[in-house]
Amino acid sequence: MKSKIILTPGPVRVPTFVIEAISKPVIHHRSPEFEFFFKELQEGLRYFFQTSHTVISLSGTGTHGVEYAMRSLFRKNEKVLIPSFGKFSERWVEYGKSSGLNVTEIQKPYGSRVNVKEILDVLDRNPGITGMVLTHCETSTGATLDLEEIVSEVKRKYKNVLIMVDAITTLGIIPFYSDAWGADSVIAASQKSLLNPAGTVFVSVGPAAASRLSETRMQDAFDLSCYYFAAMQNAYPYTPPTQLLYGIKAALDCFQEKKLPFFWNRTHSLARFFREGISAAGGKIFPDPAGDSLTAFLFSGKDLKEIYTKLKDELSIEIAEGQGELKGKILRVAHFGDIGMEETKLCLGGISEIIQN
Amino acid sequence: MKSKIILTPGPVRVPTFVIEAISKPVIHHRSPEFEFFFKELQEGLRYFFQTSHTVISLSGTGTHGVEYAMRSLFRKNEKVLIPSFGKFSERWVEYGKSSGLNVTEIQKPYGSRVNVKEILDVLDRNPGITGMVLTHCETSTGATLDLEEIVSEVKRKYKNVLIMVDAITTLGIIPFYSDAWGADSVIAASQKSLLNPAGTVFVSVGPAAASRLSETRMQDAFDLSCYYFAAMQNAYPYTPPTQLLYGIKAALDCFQEKKLPFFWNRTHSLARFFREGISAAGGKIFPDPAGDSLTAFLFSGKDLKEIYTKLKDELSIEIAEGQGELKGKILRVAHFGDIGMEETKLCLGGISEIIQN
Repeated sequence: MKSKIILTPGPVRVPTFVIEAISKPVIHHRSPEFEFFFKELQEGLRYFFQTSHTVISLSGTGTHGVEYAMRSLFRKNEKVLIPSFGKFSERWVEYGKSSGLNVTEIQKPYGSRVNVKEILDVLDRNPGITGMVLTHCETSTGATLDLEEIVSEVKRKYKNVLIMVDAITTLGIIPFYSDAWGADSVIAASQKSLLNPAGTVFVSVGPAAASRLSETRMQDAFDLSCYYFAAMQNAYPYTPPTQLLYGIKAALDCFQEKKLPFFWNRTHSLARFFREGISAAGGKIFPDPAGDSLTAFLFSGKDLKEIYTKLKDELSIEIAEGQGELKGKILRVAHFGDIGMEETKLCLGGISEIIQN
Repeated sequence: MKSKIILTPGPVRVPTFVIEAISKPVIHHRSPEFEFFFKELQEGLRYFFQTSHTVISLSGTGTHGVEYAMRSLFRKNEKVLIPSFGKFSERWVEYGKSSGLNVTEIQKPYGSRVNVKEILDVLDRNPGITGMVLTHCETSTGATLDLEEIVSEVKRKYKNVLIMVDAITTLGIIPFYSDAWGADSVIAASQKSLLNPAGTVFVSVGPAAASRLSETRMQDAFDLSCYYFAAMQNAYPYTPPTQLLYGIKAALDCFQEKKLPFFWNRTHSLARFFREGISAAGGKIFPDPAGDSLTAFLFSGKDLKEIYTKLKDELSIEIAEGQGELKGKILRVAHFGDIGMEETKLCLGGISEIIQN
């Protein structure tokens, strides 16, 4: 079967070297071989997250990772600030409310984003807030926070606010420094820059986050505690998804070899090239300014569904449509995954041609 | 690398046809293609579980599946009966207690099992019990409940007791009929008879179980509700582990083609052959009677660790040691997975030789 070109913002195409890693013979998880492998995996994850602390490997998708972190690191009724500006950040607000957190929301329209001043204003007016969930890049719109500024400023003024970052569509894609910026817990998923099948997710736990875990919650497979204390011994509390983690390790090796800036630069080049092309073809970038992870765009007066369908059916190029309230109003193209300039050019060429007909 | 012979009771060796399925090009999960695939997957799961109701696909291992079911289907303080007779059933007792259920435990020594009379006695004396968690086969000892008798008798006398079954080491391995026996929710994991990498788990939801799910809990990714209501539309509430589910579908196709009794009979033949051989070599089967899924055994006066290590290092045959309080006291060999008479004979021959030296 001819492989399609996948330019959706995840799940991305899984390259052969990852599949080969997943196919390696299984090892038992109570063995020195596993311990050795798991130690190396954790080192690779630390590089990927740019942290010297622990990164926990879990089964699940991005949403599970964020919910693992929220339910493990926040306490019932804790006052938590969650800015929402798209489908995923809205999801964290809803989960926070339904799971018994005292959520303060900064609600912004789809396509816009929250800035450091708005966040500090809310913190100044609500001294009881001790937690925050930030969506670095809203996959539903491409809007991307100025995370370095927000995290550094908040930590400078409010050291005790625990900062959790959904970096699902930014880690390995655009510059990200967990420790240097001061993020306490960061979440990344397998099916984005890590080039793996959906099904594993990773949560970093810095010292302030670790102090909120507890050995009394070790029986709960949906609490980070058991994974954290086991990881200290390079062990896993349950049957780990070892073969899937082989695939992750292969991708991490690639990040360690080529170094993160290689990927960050590639994303930026692809985003710039694609946006110039869309603008030249009469399209509009949405939002503006957008982060580099993906481009959301539209062509006024054109049937976006037709562009989407023709790309898919006639050219075997898969991009994404809008989500939530933007369904039918934008298209989205990712600048990460197992793709490069060739795929991006083919996509842009296809769009330009469809637009002109 | 030469593939080892894996005779541990999971994770099992993943055969090539499963890896090939996992390697198929990714499809987006909001598409008619996914809907079609997911519908077929669910049909395959229904056959595998022998149920006409819904089977939910989740990321995680067996423990996550059982905890998903327990936290979604039981209410806080609900009186739940959990017989314990090994490491895994003990885990469900501990999780039940720590998660706020009112647990009544029937505690039996490792290697023994609970029978229908003991269960009915407890139910007769505690009319408030409305839930039960049964571990069909204790992977830590091989002890296997007479599930048909227990479930049928309990349902005949106590229709309102919701029966949950950990069938992680029995579905696809020994005879199991969810609907005919009356089990309300049954759990199976990918890395046992389904021949897949660890990381996905499946929970069936019969009508009585479904009536305990709620649309008000749709925000919780660790509650079965959102998956259940989405599955009714052949959809998935989050990014599904699509490629891993391709692997599961390939295994299910194999079960549908060869039919379940083929696998049940194979397990029985392998277990009988292996046990006769162990007895002939002077070994003792533990417990007696054991279920067919795996054999736990020992050789009085012999160093079991040495048998385990020599099999692994000299013959590349991997079996399992004891778990929990049986660590160092038994060895365990599985009669399921990507194995047959050849591997079982090689293992038995290896053990006999090591014993004689």
